Amino acid sequence: MSRVEAFREKLREQSLDGFILYNFESSNRSSSWYLSGFSGSFSILVITPLGEYIITDSRYYTQASIETPFKLIPYKNSNGLQELLSSILRDDGALRVGFEEDTLSYGLYNRVFSGLDVELRPADRIMKDMRAVKSPEEVELISRAVSVAEKALIETMNFIKPGKTEEEVSAILEFEIRKRGGYMAFDVIVGSGSRSAIVHGRPSSKKLQEGEFVLIDYGARVEGYNSDITRTFSLGEPDEEMIRVYETVYRAQKEARDAAVAGIIGSELHEVAAEIIRNAGYGEYFGHGLGHSLGMDTHDSSGGASPTNKEPIPAGAVITIEPGIYLPEKFGVRIEDDLYLGSEGTRVLTTLDRELKIL
Amino acid sequence: MSRVEAFREKLREQSLDGFILYNFESSNRSSSWYLSGFSGSFSILVITPLGEYIITDSRYYTQASIETPFKLIPYKNSNGLQELLSSILRDDGALRVGFEEDTLSYGLYNRVFSGLDVELRPADRIMKDMRAVKSPEEVELISRAVSVAEKALIETMNFIKPGKTEEEVSAILEFEIRKRGGYMAFDVIVGSGSRSAIVHGRPSSKKLQEGEFVLIDYGARVEGYNSDITRTFSLGEPDEEMIRVYETVYRAQKEARDAAVAGIIGSELHEVAAEIIRNAGYGEYFGHGLGHSLGMDTHDSSGGASPTNKEPIPAGAVITIEPGIYLPEKFGVRIEDDLYLGSEGTRVLTTLDRELKIL
Repeated sequence: MSRVEAFREKLREQSLDGFILYNFESSNRSSSWYLSGFSGSFSILVITPLGEYIITDSRYYTQASIETPFKLIPYKNSNGLQELLSSILRDDGALRVGFEEDTLSYGLYNRVFSGLDVELRPADRIMKDMRAVKSPEEVELISRAVSVAEKALIETMNFIKPGKTEEEVSAILEFEIRKRGGYMAFDVIVGSGSRSAIVHGRPSSKKLQEGEFVLIDYGARVEGYNSDITRTFSLGEPDEEMIRVYETVYRAQKEARDAAVAGIIGSELHEVAAEIIRNAGYGEYFGHGLGHSLGMDTHDSSGGASPTNKEPIPAGAVITIEPGIYLPEKFGVRIEDDLYLGSEGTRVLTTLDRELKIL
Repeated sequence: MSRVEAFREKLREQSLDGFILYNFESSNRSSSWYLSGFSGSFSILVITPLGEYIITDSRYYTQASIETPFKLIPYKNSNGLQELLSSILRDDGALRVGFEEDTLSYGLYNRVFSGLDVELRPADRIMKDMRAVKSPEEVELISRAVSVAEKALIETMNFIKPGKTEEEVSAILEFEIRKRGGYMAFDVIVGSGSRSAIVHGRPSSKKLQEGEFVLIDYGARVEGYNSDITRTFSLGEPDEEMIRVYETVYRAQKEARDAAVAGIIGSELHEVAAEIIRNAGYGEYFGHGLGHSLGMDTHDSSGGASPTNKEPIPAGAVITIEPGIYLPEKFGVRIEDDLYLGSEGTRVLTTLDRELKIL
């Protein structure tokens, strides 16, 4: 069954006979790409009882005709959008039309959508639920994104030395990913010394120094699918506290990996790692969630191993496991892997060493 | 006057005494960065009659304390957000609170904002108008972003040869930008041969060939500010049609550059280039707008030299001038520069040659 057919079945289950998916300046590019094959930054997908349409502007006519079987309808300007959508829905007899309330702006809803002469209904779960369960082909693409990222980091490790700046390390890592046809899943994080305690810090012109941790959080995007990996290296011999923190994170990450199976409640999986970190006395220094769903977006849906997710992680999910401890003004440690939670068992997609490595 | 003071003055002009700026997964990162100094992916800025606050989560506590003077309020979870916002606004006596209807989702408005016990009013123009007029310091940062991008392209030109793939050219260009401390303003576009006619194509594994155009559209981001440049090179001798099209785009671009002064109506500036292209017989092959506003976002606001912009471009604007002609399945040409439209005159920030260059 194609994605569009599966999507139509979900529409029927919710008594909907149409759907509008809005993507502007890449605001909803992944879902548009997932459903239609079109990877551009601007598209309005319209599903009716009779057909599938893509509205986009002239920058994308050629690309759309190559990438998607959806029928192309030229976008003129924002003033004509309401009438354009109305006429497509009316001509094809759509009456109850779904949309995503969390990817559509309040302004656009009021200016354009609220005036459509159909019954509009928020239906954000359809796309989220579909995208949360990966097909074997999607897992394969994520595995390729993991492989590209891992090879790139292995090459980069030769350059991670005292005297190099965080920016230089980041530039080399990015080049190694791009050389292999990958894109950045997100802006690469390279934090050394006390900057490794900044959970989402940008690489700076600070030079790496002997006796510091270097935390690298990065990912590759290959054919629209992302990997997301973190490793923390020691430059020269770590002191006792660094070793104690690293070992704690390592243990928490390992236990959580072992506990990650399809069907586990997200918050319970988080708790596996959180308890170990708490018992070691670092509870207040692990402030983020244990992990998130991963796919065409790095943060793919609200699921995953977060303390607020009281639902089971579905079979077919790909998630990250990434506990960390951050001692302000001292250092931080995080270890992150990507896991596929299949109905037949869990597969850890990341293969890089996790033991404390001294560079 | 600081940005926050200027912002408060605009609030008063609109009889507002508060504002909420919502930024999730970088959805509104530039405006949040502009106003507060905080450059992270998640922040809720709250302005009240008594103070300025930033709500963010534990990933960003350290970074926020370094980057912004706004008072940090820890984010717990989405369930508690309404009460948290309510209490801040109530404690500080805010009654009429602005928000951005085009950067806030319909869902979040309904779940959180609509229940706040204040008078809420869309006020998207405040931030757009402020950001559209650049300070000398901002123009300087954009100039640095131009300079980084130009040096990177000059280095990369040595590698643009038949046999190289579009992906390789892109990887080298990105590396040259990163080496200089820049980030990508957006995914680099490299299109060769018939692929240069795809206005927003991604670099592919296609090899460059003798007798083709190579179109490169890219930009660097330096300290939050972007450049955006396009050049089209010929690999070996171009044929007559290629020369004719290139000369037409060159002329259109030059005339538009000369006509670009503060106060000109956006659509009239577009028309300067469109007329030249139309008169040369290529009108139907120039489908996009002549240019856009440029700054902390690559598409910085709705202004710029677009056919639908009936308003004057304000003094202090930085815009792109980028006419193009795209002959489907043959080739495309685009030339793009960045211009500062000051009240004392226009400054072309880009310095790279625009004449047809044979590599």
